[in-house]
Amino acid sequence: DILSHGQYETVYNFLSLVIASQLFTAVFLVIALPRILPRYRQAITVAIVVCGIAAYHYFRIFDSFKAAFVTDAVGGTGDYSQAVGAGFNEGYRYVDWLLTVPLLLVELVAVLALARSVQSALLRRLVPAAALMIILGYPGEISGDNGLRGLFGLLSTIPFAYILFVLFVQLSKSLDQQPTGVRRILSQLRFLLLLSWGVYPIAYLLPLLNISGADAWVFKQVGYSVADILAKAVYAVIIYQVARIKSFDDD
Amino acid sequence: DILSHGQYETVYNFLSLVIASQLFTAVFLVIALPRILPRYRQAITVAIVVCGIAAYHYFRIFDSFKAAFVTDAVGGTGDYSQAVGAGFNEGYRYVDWLLTVPLLLVELVAVLALARSVQSALLRRLVPAAALMIILGYPGEISGDNGLRGLFGLLSTIPFAYILFVLFVQLSKSLDQQPTGVRRILSQLRFLLLLSWGVYPIAYLLPLLNISGADAWVFKQVGYSVADILAKAVYAVIIYQVARIKSFDDD
Ligand SMILES: CC1=C(/C=C/C(C)=C/C=C/C(C)=C/C=O)C(C)(C)CCC1
Ligand SMILES: CC1=C(/C=C/C(C)=C/C=C/C(C)=C/C=O)C(C)(C)CCC1
Repeated sequence: DILSHGQYETVYNFLSLVIASQLFTAVFLVIALPRILPRYRQAITVAIVVCGIAAYHYFRIFDSFKAAFVTDAVGGTGDYSQAVGAGFNEGYRYVDWLLTVPLLLVELVAVLALARSVQSALLRRLVPAAALMIILGYPGEISGDNGLRGLFGLLSTIPFAYILFVLFVQLSKSLDQQPTGVRRILSQLRFLLLLSWGVYPIAYLLPLLNISGADAWVFKQVGYSVADILAKAVYAVIIYQVARIKSFDDD
Repeated sequence: DILSHGQYETVYNFLSLVIASQLFTAVFLVIALPRILPRYRQAITVAIVVCGIAAYHYFRIFDSFKAAFVTDAVGGTGDYSQAVGAGFNEGYRYVDWLLTVPLLLVELVAVLALARSVQSALLRRLVPAAALMIILGYPGEISGDNGLRGLFGLLSTIPFAYILFVLFVQLSKSLDQQPTGVRRILSQLRFLLLLSWGVYPIAYLLPLLNISGADAWVFKQVGYSVADILAKAVYAVIIYQVARIKSFDDD
């Protein structure tokens, strides 16, 4: 694909926005950690790690983008075409998700501070399902074939549906035992999760719907960037608020 | 060897996955350290250092890989062949192991928090054996000759067998004195160790079995990556759990 100067700068700026958001959410949480009761620090520590991992991968994605699209216009104001010998590596995203998606669920369960047995029962379901979802999506993403893409997308949707089932049906009982001040926030958090996680399967579908070309590609990168900020940084800040309120209540 | 685009990206993504896993396991442990009783902090500190050393070496391995394989295809989607004037340096791995393998054993012994004399008796056996194992393997790895490779491989297996003997026979007595809550985890940890450490001698054997070519090479890199994540990052998280449970129990 060929990107116009404006498209190139749009992607560039959004990728950089993600780096700044993730990195400084992590920094914020590191500094704020001592203000949380020890019982909720596990959740915040995991949030720091998630945002850190995301920042690392976005540094790589950013470099890969800069190497993959080049122009010979003076001042860089012309069209950007694909470079010789360097490609934009989308696979990074899956590597990132493989680590961070299970951890996002750990983060959520940890902040609830449930009884140890309830907690490990939830995690034994959620973490393998999350890993399976990502692993099954990967072969479809890298294959050029639409049939394989559809097949693996479908397979990957099974653990995805299971995760949503556990979060929205099985977790509801535990939410009722949370202090009233955080119950509403936690329930909204699940909808933020649904909204942001939903972006990834939709982006995966685009080639099946024959949506391609530079505009669609730029739109996809911007969509991923916004979803990643919502699913990790904004999510982490809300988890932090829950931990703060619960720390007050318990004190 | 010539790598296809898919093979190149697979190795690329796995090497990056190792960097992210080791680096953020180390970050996680640094943040979580204060939640561990001082008596178990030695083990976690060593775990941080091990994961940090591994991350450092994988940054180097990653750069070495990127310099060693190049393509002139637009968008980087063609075959990758070996570069002029830059090689992939496998020797890095031995440098990493020379430092980290003895430390992994220190980590395990430290978390047991045995009597000082028992502890130093164990380490006086395990640490020199681990160093010897790596040092003896190196000349075989870098020699092109299969006879030398076999010979040094055999010599290196002697200290390897000795380490397994100490861990599975001599350590068993000490495990019986551990609190019940961690005894099972510790015993599983030894099997994780056996499973992940076993990958390295198997990879060493491949040239002796005349297994070579691009597929075998990619498979070996992926195998090393997964084994390194299990042997260091996953291992560290399990050691952390042991330390957490023991900290609770002692409190
Ligand atoms: C269902 C489904 C998928 C789901 C992906 C999800 C849900 C990813 C979530 C990523 C997050 C939350 C990243 C963190 O910021 C895939 C793998 C695209 C393949 C197609 C089917
Ligand atoms: C027995 C044997 C070997 C053993 C290597 C081992 C056991 C390496 C362990 C490395 C670890 C644990 C790395 C950390 O992640 C060599 C040297 C390949 C040479 C052939 C014989």
